[in-house]
Amino acid sequence: MKIYNREQITAVTGLTEDALAAVEAGFAALGRGEVTMPPVLSMNISESNGEVDVKTAHIRGKDRFAIKISPGFFDNPKLGLPSLNGLMVLFSAKTGMVDSVLFDEGYLTDIRTALAGAIAARHLSREDSRSVAVIGAGLQAELQVAALGLVRPIREVHVFARNADRMEAYQELMEQKYGLPVTMHPSAASACAQADIVVTTTPASSPVLHWQDLRPGTHVTAMGSDNSHKQELEPAILANADVLVVDRRSQSETIGELHHFPGDFTGPVLELGTLIAEHMQPRTSPAQITVCDLSGTGVQDTAIADYTAARLAG
Amino acid sequence: MKIYNREQITAVTGLTEDALAAVEAGFAALGRGEVTMPPVLSMNISESNGEVDVKTAHIRGKDRFAIKISPGFFDNPKLGLPSLNGLMVLFSAKTGMVDSVLFDEGYLTDIRTALAGAIAARHLSREDSRSVAVIGAGLQAELQVAALGLVRPIREVHVFARNADRMEAYQELMEQKYGLPVTMHPSAASACAQADIVVTTTPASSPVLHWQDLRPGTHVTAMGSDNSHKQELEPAILANADVLVVDRRSQSETIGELHHFPGDFTGPVLELGTLIAEHMQPRTSPAQITVCDLSGTGVQDTAIADYTAARLAG
Repeated sequence: MKIYNREQITAVTGLTEDALAAVEAGFAALGRGEVTMPPVLSMNISESNGEVDVKTAHIRGKDRFAIKISPGFFDNPKLGLPSLNGLMVLFSAKTGMVDSVLFDEGYLTDIRTALAGAIAARHLSREDSRSVAVIGAGLQAELQVAALGLVRPIREVHVFARNADRMEAYQELMEQKYGLPVTMHPSAASACAQADIVVTTTPASSPVLHWQDLRPGTHVTAMGSDNSHKQELEPAILANADVLVVDRRSQSETIGELHHFPGDFTGPVLELGTLIAEHMQPRTSPAQITVCDLSGTGVQDTAIADYTAARLAG
Repeated sequence: MKIYNREQITAVTGLTEDALAAVEAGFAALGRGEVTMPPVLSMNISESNGEVDVKTAHIRGKDRFAIKISPGFFDNPKLGLPSLNGLMVLFSAKTGMVDSVLFDEGYLTDIRTALAGAIAARHLSREDSRSVAVIGAGLQAELQVAALGLVRPIREVHVFARNADRMEAYQELMEQKYGLPVTMHPSAASACAQADIVVTTTPASSPVLHWQDLRPGTHVTAMGSDNSHKQELEPAILANADVLVVDRRSQSETIGELHHFPGDFTGPVLELGTLIAEHMQPRTSPAQITVCDLSGTGVQDTAIADYTAARLAG
């Protein structure tokens, strides 16, 4: 059994083509029905404004599977600690023995989440997408844009966040770290007005993006909602989109955007894995609006953990 | 963050009065409604005849909670490896930071499971119970009897197991290790004929114990079933018992004995935690037959892990 810390993990895994390929292969296996993925285990610890989620999946034929434990304690910043944390434990899929423990402190979740956004954009956005609007100014606002650069020729960023200080810090970071010009906006609508791709990255519990904010041809990835009380998209976006994709329908209906759709959602919904496995090209015109809701799946965790452990051991 | 191995853990935690008190306090908190305990996460890995369960619970006011990961890979003995395995991760209930990792390889599960049997017997069996019948001859057949010694004056053991070699090995072990005389029996009925307490400790998928096997005054603990396909008790035992107790009703109905009851179970069912919290004495005569179904709860895991970590740190 091997134990790795965050420093060792960040040295081998990042927002790269091959990490993206590993996560995409996990989604494809899910789409081919080759993945066992139980529902998320979730526990609230209300006295500390905390929660903990456990996700897992086994990809048929893979030697290892991961179990990921993700605590989120939202009063931590008051203590000078990060809200998110966690670790992944890799097990042999042959014997159940512990293979390795990745004390990544949530890093691999950040990476696989950003890569899922890039994978969605690769299959749904216009190939010439060069402008991204980001709602929110946290870590995923950074990583989603960085990951999009793996699949689309991103040249400019538009941001809207409620907190003006964080929005300014984001502008500075993205310009310095990635050389990307960032324009700050007073509203989501304004940020989206010049965007080919829109990514919502907030912990919002009511819509931060509305159908009327979107211009024709936009692709939207909503990655914030992963809990029944969270919601980023006005339901009209789900109803009116030309193409609606989710990472896992059962999750979107319980902890993602479909959970908030009034009544039953009767329109067509594609799963991202199916789309990849079957080489579908759901966007059939540059004017269509495509939407992908990501709630975060265990198969991404197993895929990125297996990828990381192989690199650490190699 | 601290990491402990099995050797360190076995040195501080075993079948003792204070470990029993720790687990009993966990059940009592559950009975008082002070525990958050989500449903078990369970995943099958059928290509390896394996499964993995994740259990957790938070006891209000406690500084730590545990998440336990228990793989069971039932072809492992062919490879010279144990079937059961696992670890517990303790987190701060204030910040979600990892407090410690207990690489106990399933040891603490064995202990807290045996202690739950003793707790059930303390509250349900006759105080003068001195004779135990055990169905099965594995590790729990040993530990359940050893733990019963904490709460009742156990003087003799009767065993029935299908595998005669294992039954003989069990007889030898119990006599040498605990000085307890063990009588081997050709059937469960025969073993139960002289027993005050009966414990079923098998992975059976059809009843190993029948109502007609039980003499008046017996207490039965069924600890084997923890999966929807497992069953140890004939449903008539549940229906006819004077007192029926379960560790967690929702679990008994999905992965325990109540799951196999034909139709809805309409009789009274007590939870073990309620009984402890409310100082109930459900046995009102020495002739009554009491039954407790244990499927294993996350609160036991958090209780034993917290107890162990405190001793390791102290």
